[in-house]
Amino acid sequence: MDTHSNILKYKHLGIYTQNENVVYMREDCHVCISEGFEALTRIRISNANTSIVASLNVLNSDILLPNEIGLSDAAAKKLNVSPNDTLYVSHLEPIESLSHVRAKIYNKKLDYKAYNNIITDIVEGDYSNIHLSAFITACAGDRMDIDEISDLTKAMIASGKQLNWNKDIVVDKHCIGGLPGNRTTPLVVAIVAAYGLTMPKTSSRAITSPAGTADTMEVLTNVTLSSEEIKTVVEKEGGCFVWGGTAQLSPADDVLIKIEKALDIDSEGQLIASVLSKKAAAGSTHVVIDIPVGETAKVRSTEMAEKLKNHMETVGTAVGLNVKVVVTDGTQPVGRGIGPTLEAIDILKVLKNEEDAPKDLTERALLLATELLELSGKVEKGKGQETAHKILKSGKAYEKFVAICKAQGQFSKPVLAPYKIEIKAEKSGVLQRIDNRKIAKLAKLSGAPQSKSAGILLNVHLGEQIEENQLLYTIYAESKGELNYALEYENNHNDIITIN
Amino acid sequence: MDTHSNILKYKHLGIYTQNENVVYMREDCHVCISEGFEALTRIRISNANTSIVASLNVLNSDILLPNEIGLSDAAAKKLNVSPNDTLYVSHLEPIESLSHVRAKIYNKKLDYKAYNNIITDIVEGDYSNIHLSAFITACAGDRMDIDEISDLTKAMIASGKQLNWNKDIVVDKHCIGGLPGNRTTPLVVAIVAAYGLTMPKTSSRAITSPAGTADTMEVLTNVTLSSEEIKTVVEKEGGCFVWGGTAQLSPADDVLIKIEKALDIDSEGQLIASVLSKKAAAGSTHVVIDIPVGETAKVRSTEMAEKLKNHMETVGTAVGLNVKVVVTDGTQPVGRGIGPTLEAIDILKVLKNEEDAPKDLTERALLLATELLELSGKVEKGKGQETAHKILKSGKAYEKFVAICKAQGQFSKPVLAPYKIEIKAEKSGVLQRIDNRKIAKLAKLSGAPQSKSAGILLNVHLGEQIEENQLLYTIYAESKGELNYALEYENNHNDIITIN
Repeated sequence: MDTHSNILKYKHLGIYTQNENVVYMREDCHVCISEGFEALTRIRISNANTSIVASLNVLNSDILLPNEIGLSDAAAKKLNVSPNDTLYVSHLEPIESLSHVRAKIYNKKLDYKAYNNIITDIVEGDYSNIHLSAFITACAGDRMDIDEISDLTKAMIASGKQLNWNKDIVVDKHCIGGLPGNRTTPLVVAIVAAYGLTMPKTSSRAITSPAGTADTMEVLTNVTLSSEEIKTVVEKEGGCFVWGGTAQLSPADDVLIKIEKALDIDSEGQLIASVLSKKAAAGSTHVVIDIPVGETAKVRSTEMAEKLKNHMETVGTAVGLNVKVVVTDGTQPVGRGIGPTLEAIDILKVLKNEEDAPKDLTERALLLATELLELSGKVEKGKGQETAHKILKSGKAYEKFVAICKAQGQFSKPVLAPYKIEIKAEKSGVLQRIDNRKIAKLAKLSGAPQSKSAGILLNVHLGEQIEENQLLYTIYAESKGELNYALEYENNHNDIITIN
Repeated sequence: MDTHSNILKYKHLGIYTQNENVVYMREDCHVCISEGFEALTRIRISNANTSIVASLNVLNSDILLPNEIGLSDAAAKKLNVSPNDTLYVSHLEPIESLSHVRAKIYNKKLDYKAYNNIITDIVEGDYSNIHLSAFITACAGDRMDIDEISDLTKAMIASGKQLNWNKDIVVDKHCIGGLPGNRTTPLVVAIVAAYGLTMPKTSSRAITSPAGTADTMEVLTNVTLSSEEIKTVVEKEGGCFVWGGTAQLSPADDVLIKIEKALDIDSEGQLIASVLSKKAAAGSTHVVIDIPVGETAKVRSTEMAEKLKNHMETVGTAVGLNVKVVVTDGTQPVGRGIGPTLEAIDILKVLKNEEDAPKDLTERALLLATELLELSGKVEKGKGQETAHKILKSGKAYEKFVAICKAQGQFSKPVLAPYKIEIKAEKSGVLQRIDNRKIAKLAKLSGAPQSKSAGILLNVHLGEQIEENQLLYTIYAESKGELNYALEYENNHNDIITIN
């Protein structure tokens, strides 16, 4: 076999396929002909330094010359190639870990070694989206027992970087699914860091929601910091609120989560492994997890929440984390603002103890801070609430918040969007229901989170007596077009807020 | 919302992705920016006549201009577009049938309506490979009961064309998994058509094997016939052996089977639905199914085969087919030739009752013809064997075979490949084992089925006493390179044939 016949020249095509490695080759190139490659075949592509596995797409146009080869951006990045680089193409040896996936499809219990093999290959990029989807599906629907979830979690922790803060106690929090406006994280960080605990919080940007914590905090400070910069901030202030995107913690999770989104399923096992692996890899020791329950929240029943709580705490113990799960009310948004700037305004009002600070957000943040203080063992059980309350009311939380922002490079003031429209009640009655998903969608259509100051400012809560023409909420937008876009959605959906 | 902003101009990119609809748009095109499309998003693409759903790949190169849009070949074909055609892009309404897939993932039983919705959307191309993989996985591992398999089969039949031969009895046969060289189909067609039954046999080309029945018959006659031509042949001769690729019978199966191959799983439910839906859609009424059992066959144990037999016959009844399953020996190849031309030579030897006709192939064909004659009810139980034997030995089967070939346009003689090498035994002993998969791989490396006359001519059978240096098999190839390619594999694998 003449391996030299398998050499091709790289051409940049600039095709972004998300995580999936795709290789493009002409149907009449000598490699395709002699090797008999067909579309959807998985092949190995190598350069002098490394190699990847990619799915083949066959070209019958002049985008490529017969001796050229193209790669999806994900694949090109992994191979670190430049135009005209030489690449070698070869048949793929079987991916051994797929035998474990097949075993799981046939309801077999897998052990740590099997999960570790699977996760290692996923991080390598050896799985196509077809394989990833099969793995996720085979693990969904209660097909993993608690040992398996623990083993999967451990495998995911081991698959990426693991941070070490050289502290006995490192605290963290997480909210499952999230609720619009529920921006407790910066408040909790400020309170517990002011107390003296270490809370190096990395947050995500919005994927499908109108704001992630990183988007919101970016209104007030820099959130894109290097590992070194983060370390400096945390050493100085005991806490941070930064974007976690560059940290490469539990990288398998980043791949799996995209496939789960495409399938629109939440496998309990994958969810637990996803959350806890990120926390453990980030070097946390004590974690409070908030599960909001509500008809339009991610977790829809108390029964599901209690089961999840139980499993999460058990798996936490198995992977060496102290996990406390708090089941909270998820029937409506928390705070008034939905969208980065509007949420940042809420946060500042709470920290500054202003008269019109949203009470629900304050209470939720105090609850989580209380749990975290007590879970850490540094504050006696039963004393957490008083401690947290005192830190917030005394202004120490605000001081700490500003100090962290400054350590991250700046402390900026939020500025409202130039365009707005007020949505008023069409009739009187009691506010029966707020659809979390639809109000989030409305905020997104107004431009959030790309347009930072776009979003929704809520004026009402569940159970309130509403008068006809009373202001329900205000839509903010940075352009007239976006405002109209949101308004059209509002006009077409009369069940965003239900009054009866 | 200005829908005109969603208009783009089609450019041919010629990217072949197999079944999957992919749309290519520039990251800086106005539609991507205003709609917020991200890679892996599924979007709807329409022209004046029709619309499809496609997965978005985002481009950051000059393959496209900002106002241009590209499509994978599958998508372009479905939309029937030409360069510079105008296409409209819009957000995708949720695909309702995915809720059934999610229900199946969570172990719910689905009914006919649910399977019908799923299969309809799959045929429309609305499912991405991620969705298809989840559906297949959720149905695998005994997660479908017999009612569900029946409902899936019915849904698959309804999803495509259904042929009608205007005959009370239309017979067919199928072999699960296939064995190298096991080319009984043309023999069975010749025998039962000579008897007077109608057997309009459509066959596949090889996908992963060294020859499909269509590849083998193409050595001897034309196999690519239009529906009208097939009808004429069958009306005249009672049978045919044509390629079924253009028939659009059970089109969902063509999509699902590619994903199953990528996963390398055989879900029992999908397998039954796949086989029986094709047969029912082809207008068959009586079907004999051959399940070869062997360590290196598709079905590896008699227990599995018996379960499959049972389910297959039950589902057959449920969808109105008379199904008889025959469990056969799958421990070694059948016949001497492996590869189109070499198999065609075997077939002619059997039909002409030549001295050196492979006995195992003759017996296997007679067994299946016997079962089919008796299943049809036209031949009394117990008399089938005698009838089939008489038709073959009298030369009537050969006459019918030649007549069908001529009706299909020609009857050609097979010609052996110019290059060959003989593989001899390195030691004496009893032939213990032949690896079906490895011998098939060897035939493929020699060039089969693209090189029609390439392949393997087997000289030995299981259980025979072999002397050192005795000829085991001959490798045929159409080029020296291919011969060497096969030889290299042979050198590296000493377990293709095991002598002890």
